[in-house]
Amino acid sequence: MYTSKALKEYKIKEIEYCRIHGRTDLSQPAVPLFWNGSGIELNVSGSELWLDIEVDFELFEPWVSVELNGSFMSRQMLMPGRQYFCLFRCMTPSEKKTVFFRRELQAMHEDDACHIVIHGVLSDGQFFPVKDRRYKLEFIGDSITSGEGTYGAKSDTDWLSMYMSSSINYATLIGKELDAEVRLLSQGGFGVYTGWDNDIRHNMPAYYDPICGLAFGEANEKLGAMKPYDFSSWQPDAIVVNLGTNDDSAFHQPPFTDPETGENHKMRRKSDVANCPVSRSQTGEWRINKAIEPSSMGTSNAQASPVTVSTSQTATEPKTISSAESAEKDYLEEDVAKVKKAVTDFLAHLREKNPESHIVWVYGMLGYALSLSISEAVSSYIRESGDTNVFYLQLPNTTEDELGAHAHPGPSAHIKAAEILSDYLAKRLR
Amino acid sequence: MYTSKALKEYKIKEIEYCRIHGRTDLSQPAVPLFWNGSGIELNVSGSELWLDIEVDFELFEPWVSVELNGSFMSRQMLMPGRQYFCLFRCMTPSEKKTVFFRRELQAMHEDDACHIVIHGVLSDGQFFPVKDRRYKLEFIGDSITSGEGTYGAKSDTDWLSMYMSSSINYATLIGKELDAEVRLLSQGGFGVYTGWDNDIRHNMPAYYDPICGLAFGEANEKLGAMKPYDFSSWQPDAIVVNLGTNDDSAFHQPPFTDPETGENHKMRRKSDVANCPVSRSQTGEWRINKAIEPSSMGTSNAQASPVTVSTSQTATEPKTISSAESAEKDYLEEDVAKVKKAVTDFLAHLREKNPESHIVWVYGMLGYALSLSISEAVSSYIRESGDTNVFYLQLPNTTEDELGAHAHPGPSAHIKAAEILSDYLAKRLR
Amino acid sequence: MYTSKALKEYKIKEIEYCRIHGRTDLSQPAVPLFWNGSGIELNVSGSELWLDIEVDFELFEPWVSVELNGSFMSRQMLMPGRQYFCLFRCMTPSEKKTVFFRRELQAMHEDDACHIVIHGVLSDGQFFPVKDRRYKLEFIGDSITSGEGTYGAKSDTDWLSMYMSSSINYATLIGKELDAEVRLLSQGGFGVYTGWDNDIRHNMPAYYDPICGLAFGEANEKLGAMKPYDFSSWQPDAIVVNLGTNDDSAFHQPPFTDPETGENHKMRRKSDVANCPVSRSQTGEWRINKAIEPSSMGTSNAQASPVTVSTSQTATEPKTISSAESAEKDYLEEDVAKVKKAVTDFLAHLREKNPESHIVWVYGMLGYALSLSISEAVSSYIRESGDTNVFYLQLPNTTEDELGAHAHPGPSAHIKAAEILSDYLAKRLR
Amino acid sequence: MYTSKALKEYKIKEIEYCRIHGRTDLSQPAVPLFWNGSGIELNVSGSELWLDIEVDFELFEPWVSVELNGSFMSRQMLMPGRQYFCLFRCMTPSEKKTVFFRRELQAMHEDDACHIVIHGVLSDGQFFPVKDRRYKLEFIGDSITSGEGTYGAKSDTDWLSMYMSSSINYATLIGKELDAEVRLLSQGGFGVYTGWDNDIRHNMPAYYDPICGLAFGEANEKLGAMKPYDFSSWQPDAIVVNLGTNDDSAFHQPPFTDPETGENHKMRRKSDVANCPVSRSQTGEWRINKAIEPSSMGTSNAQASPVTVSTSQTATEPKTISSAESAEKDYLEEDVAKVKKAVTDFLAHLREKNPESHIVWVYGMLGYALSLSISEAVSSYIRESGDTNVFYLQLPNTTEDELGAHAHPGPSAHIKAAEILSDYLAKRLR
Repeated sequence: MYTSKALKEYKIKEIEYCRIHGRTDLSQPAVPLFWNGSGIELNVSGSELWLDIEVDFELFEPWVSVELNGSFMSRQMLMPGRQYFCLFRCMTPSEKKTVFFRRELQAMHEDDACHIVIHGVLSDGQFFPVKDRRYKLEFIGDSITSGEGTYGAKSDTDWLSMYMSSSINYATLIGKELDAEVRLLSQGGFGVYTGWDNDIRHNMPAYYDPICGLAFGEANEKLGAMKPYDFSSWQPDAIVVNLGTNDDSAFHQPPFTDPETGENHKMRRKSDVANCPVSRSQTGEWRINKAIEPSSMGTSNAQASPVTVSTSQTATEPKTISSAESAEKDYLEEDVAKVKKAVTDFLAHLREKNPESHIVWVYGMLGYALSLSISEAVSSYIRESGDTNVFYLQLPNTTEDELGAHAHPGPSAHIKAAEILSDYLAKRLR
Repeated sequence: MYTSKALKEYKIKEIEYCRIHGRTDLSQPAVPLFWNGSGIELNVSGSELWLDIEVDFELFEPWVSVELNGSFMSRQMLMPGRQYFCLFRCMTPSEKKTVFFRRELQAMHEDDACHIVIHGVLSDGQFFPVKDRRYKLEFIGDSITSGEGTYGAKSDTDWLSMYMSSSINYATLIGKELDAEVRLLSQGGFGVYTGWDNDIRHNMPAYYDPICGLAFGEANEKLGAMKPYDFSSWQPDAIVVNLGTNDDSAFHQPPFTDPETGENHKMRRKSDVANCPVSRSQTGEWRINKAIEPSSMGTSNAQASPVTVSTSQTATEPKTISSAESAEKDYLEEDVAKVKKAVTDFLAHLREKNPESHIVWVYGMLGYALSLSISEAVSSYIRESGDTNVFYLQLPNTTEDELGAHAHPGPSAHIKAAEILSDYLAKRLR
Repeated sequence: MYTSKALKEYKIKEIEYCRIHGRTDLSQPAVPLFWNGSGIELNVSGSELWLDIEVDFELFEPWVSVELNGSFMSRQMLMPGRQYFCLFRCMTPSEKKTVFFRRELQAMHEDDACHIVIHGVLSDGQFFPVKDRRYKLEFIGDSITSGEGTYGAKSDTDWLSMYMSSSINYATLIGKELDAEVRLLSQGGFGVYTGWDNDIRHNMPAYYDPICGLAFGEANEKLGAMKPYDFSSWQPDAIVVNLGTNDDSAFHQPPFTDPETGENHKMRRKSDVANCPVSRSQTGEWRINKAIEPSSMGTSNAQASPVTVSTSQTATEPKTISSAESAEKDYLEEDVAKVKKAVTDFLAHLREKNPESHIVWVYGMLGYALSLSISEAVSSYIRESGDTNVFYLQLPNTTEDELGAHAHPGPSAHIKAAEILSDYLAKRLR
Repeated sequence: MYTSKALKEYKIKEIEYCRIHGRTDLSQPAVPLFWNGSGIELNVSGSELWLDIEVDFELFEPWVSVELNGSFMSRQMLMPGRQYFCLFRCMTPSEKKTVFFRRELQAMHEDDACHIVIHGVLSDGQFFPVKDRRYKLEFIGDSITSGEGTYGAKSDTDWLSMYMSSSINYATLIGKELDAEVRLLSQGGFGVYTGWDNDIRHNMPAYYDPICGLAFGEANEKLGAMKPYDFSSWQPDAIVVNLGTNDDSAFHQPPFTDPETGENHKMRRKSDVANCPVSRSQTGEWRINKAIEPSSMGTSNAQASPVTVSTSQTATEPKTISSAESAEKDYLEEDVAKVKKAVTDFLAHLREKNPESHIVWVYGMLGYALSLSISEAVSSYIRESGDTNVFYLQLPNTTEDELGAHAHPGPSAHIKAAEILSDYLAKRLR
């Protein structure tokens, strides 16, 4: 392999004009990429460009993509170890190229080892300023915002790293359309109040304050994931919250028993109270109404992976859409109220951290069941707080034709959502 | 002109298999077409087919379109008088053809003379049953549902019959997609509480109960327009209400003085109360704050037509969208409450008349300003009534590229709305 | 009906700024519209505009369409008689409107009575110059160029006026794309050498020189149809010839006996010579090989119309495309040579009449069977004449999905052809 | 990194159901991937799948893509060395997956070291038969068929591996549409008679007979590239030849001096003969008409790469399209005749090697300049050989909007070409 004799090694922190995307810990000597869509962007001359990166994971291999001069060039999984990653070779040395190396995988709270770190760069060129974007946008969401289903065949039903992306993702598309820098904070299976499987620990608001509240384990700890995030460092023009889909799913899943506390949790439908094997007494205790077959206890995917780690299936279980369409009327008001309170609480928290940002809650790409409730919660937050810089925007449900892998929105659904939301934000922010 | 020697004249009521679309008075010897999208559909053999129709109008000429075998064939204005209207000629006599003759123009409350009546048919063939549709759908709306802007150049800004249609219209597109019979009740400039210009008489709920509450004048009276409509005769599977856009406009228009009562009406913004030339006292009286130039009093279109009839400009005045986007926070809560009450009242009334129909309120195609408020009203109706067969669906705002004539949604905006609403209804109704 | 009191009557020839489209006889007091796409275009102020037209036909009713400010507004059949045709009403008097009234129907050589004449205009406004187009384009073709199949359901198989158009037509679309004035000369069923049914009188070159060689009968005679056309009056920048499709069909049809001369004509395949009921001797005489059932003699459509006029079915009989795809190898070289000679002769004739025009022969929208032969003929014309301002451009065959009525190219096929040809012409003409 | 304990190593030749795509030397213990689009396809159960591959190159790094269950999953450059390449991990073991690992880069005649070899597979599942395709299709072409420009920004103008692909390529799209196995033989800058820069050694026919006549060097020699190809092993249903674009370019480039023979070569325009610095005498010798600036001698890209290897710029120099559009008339007949002879010779050679295959020559995606000449050559081949199983199909020129990187057809141009050619082949092959 021919290699330029003029290649020079740069520590990532030495490069004056390096644009780092995504929340990260800038006090590190190297740059960890915690979230989906995080990455680095360079405007550089020279004939070659390489990254010096370090990768590890146990179960969920990280994927990355590369854009050259704004055009998609590659997408691949990374293998563990420290390595040079080639971004381009043999190009006209004098020309400036814009390169964007981007993480395609959400923060993986189920894989403590999973991380990507950028140590430095090999280049035989010079670095130039990276263009500033007109807007800053933050997206907070679940598997939809993790881009799950944007790659993979419609028939694919595993829950895998490779089906997620930022390269095809409504957030990224909006960024391109509006000339915005985007940050994604998302986790498949998570809700605003509860996860898809009634595990109430799996709510995004609980993980919003640290740099990356969903990158666990010693390695990520050392990389600064759990440090408090300095909100003043990057105040978005708008925050898009896309949560609620998994809260809805929980109404259709069996109860979850918290392994630490032994407590049972369940979002209930009226039919559950009548027929469901568990119910809750006035004093808040769960009662088993009748014996439940273990096989029906949310373990349908348990053999999905060769891996024995039990939590690896915490995914957005695709609900039966037709039932969900007409389901809200059947939801127990008392449990819907928990979602609504979580919405208003999260809005208040977001406002505290982001005093001037426009906040738009979006919902609907996988069913409208909680739409009226979330909209009401947004309205009641506005009324009670007097904070009118908040809105609720319904996004169209994904049609059968638009589904991608794992019953999630495919590329055309992301494009449609991006068009609607781009138009909304363009008019609101100007 | 060659004409088939075998043509026979039929009174419209003699034909066994004549499908009449749209609310009308079936006790008449002839069939009046009152609403946009109303018409007759025949499945007929023979080489020729003519309609015997009678037309009149003063200002707003009615337009009609013809579909042959489900495909758009013609669209034209009609001239006054009794006349034979040719639907096809010289076709293979033995083949059955489906022909749909359809009114393209909304009921015209500003033109008492405007009407189309179908007296009969000339045919040299036989009549066969018209296929039954799977669903019945009713659409209630304003200029959007009147299809205003679906024809005409983007630069056209007059308020004219010819820019309206049922041939390109989200309601008609949904009917085709879902195999549904559709009925449209719509009037440009009307709201659920008030018209675009603060004329509170221009609200659709007030005109829902008669066969056609918006066809005035002696001719229409005789044709039965004002007779009570027999709701039991055609209970829709779903009702789509697309109102609120003109209620929003009213917040941006000067006050309206009711010519009959002398009362002033105005939907107010907080800035109006501070700066507006008029305000209302505690006791409900309007006060002129300072002199208003006559030219700024909502009369900008007053010379638009050669016609001197003063009410002919009651249109959806296209508001400045950017202001509307951020406007709701500025609306006086007291006036927004009137819209919300009108929504809940209308839902209750619709439910009374249509006990089993699914009702979905849609809104957003010309701005989201009242979206949260309407959604809240829908929620509060559901909570108070216990009627859960109701939903609120936001439709995407029309982008700059999708605008048609007179700053209204163009064909691509109607297609987009139809796709989203078809998907929603298909899932909800199955 | 309200009518402007200020309407004034103008003879069409009195109007200074009247743009007349299509070849016509300008020495007439009124303006006859002979060809598809011919019409008049006005740039006019005022609130109303009417045309004073005169129409007649026996079998094939003419259709017209109206564009207002460049946007499609109406399309309808015309009834016989002198009449006022309303183009718009009640518009803002001071605004200038561009109106284009256009014939949708080809010249109808089978209906001597068929004609449209424009006598004058009623207007309460003023006339302004109509914008000049950048290019002049002439299209010469068959049913494809007559727009047959651009309206009508895919299942429609009659041969009717209403399925043809200039409003949806690759020629018109190219005119819009390139800012060109277009003229269409076309006739369904006609070829460059022979008609679809082996009637060799049905070739377009024979009708190119008069103003409209295909408008027969006394009425058209009087209107000047058969007068020689003054080619110097309008020299096109480019001529598009789209012929050959019916010459190909003739290879798949039974022989035709000229009613006047009694001569038999047949484009032969090798299999015809072996199996066909007729063949031709060395001396050029036709021999009946065996008895032919009259029913197989090209009369398959004979009962298609209630009309007894026998020639009314001279249409492009859609051939079985699959056979045609592989058919050329089976065509008798001697008969293919007739098509090739007709091509070179027509090119020479076109060049004589249009010394500077670029000429592009296009072919393929209904099968490629004669593509190599036509291309060779074009090449040999160029070589022999030294005239290099000529080209052969293959257009894509219409796919099953793109078919419109009567097995002809539907709207999407016309759009595709227009895109390719527009790109070609834009690069060639600049 | 977790790895399945059940992984087993297989030599590639041990696997019963391994589908090898592309011409290769099956007598090797491992499988070399010589051509663009070559690769291996497996239908396999298990949770993980890895390839054991060996890669090398000097200048032009090979790229590969992976399809999982028919859906694009990854695309990346490969680094030198023997390595395990992960195709999937952690999937449901019991499910069968179809995986297609495919070379994205053309055979690289300018990089002797460039090669990919597949040694074996690591799997914890079982192998199943790979589905048979309905058709076999062979594509022979230049940079267009190498997919140059299907990746990369429109502004990118280097000549690089990464802009080429089989993943977005009309050949691959046709394979999907028609359910066909496809083989690509292509080389950027090559013609049927001469390369883009007048180097007549760069013609594809000269390299058709060996397994891969364009993979040079010792390594490829050992891998069997230059062995004669056994045509009987895979007879295509159709062969698509897409050559001529570079022959046309040569008319617009300066002469080329063969470094081995010292001979000058130049495709001449009439203007060259008059004005060009070189011309050829009757006896075939080149004469310098006047001094030529070295900088104008086809070396415009010479500094394009950091690499000093002088031949690395042999690319399809994008000609000025507007000049090419009208250029053929200016080409010296004597030189055009060389292209025509090369076409007929190549057709004869293809027929000899593929007795039953349909052969279609396509041309036009980068300009029509030689279209008439190539069409004539095809016709003359048919006439002289009596071989009617051959056709010439013009493809639409790439519009400005459809261009991809390096002034080559972008994705939408490939899609358009694929639609037209798929329709043609579907009708011809059925």
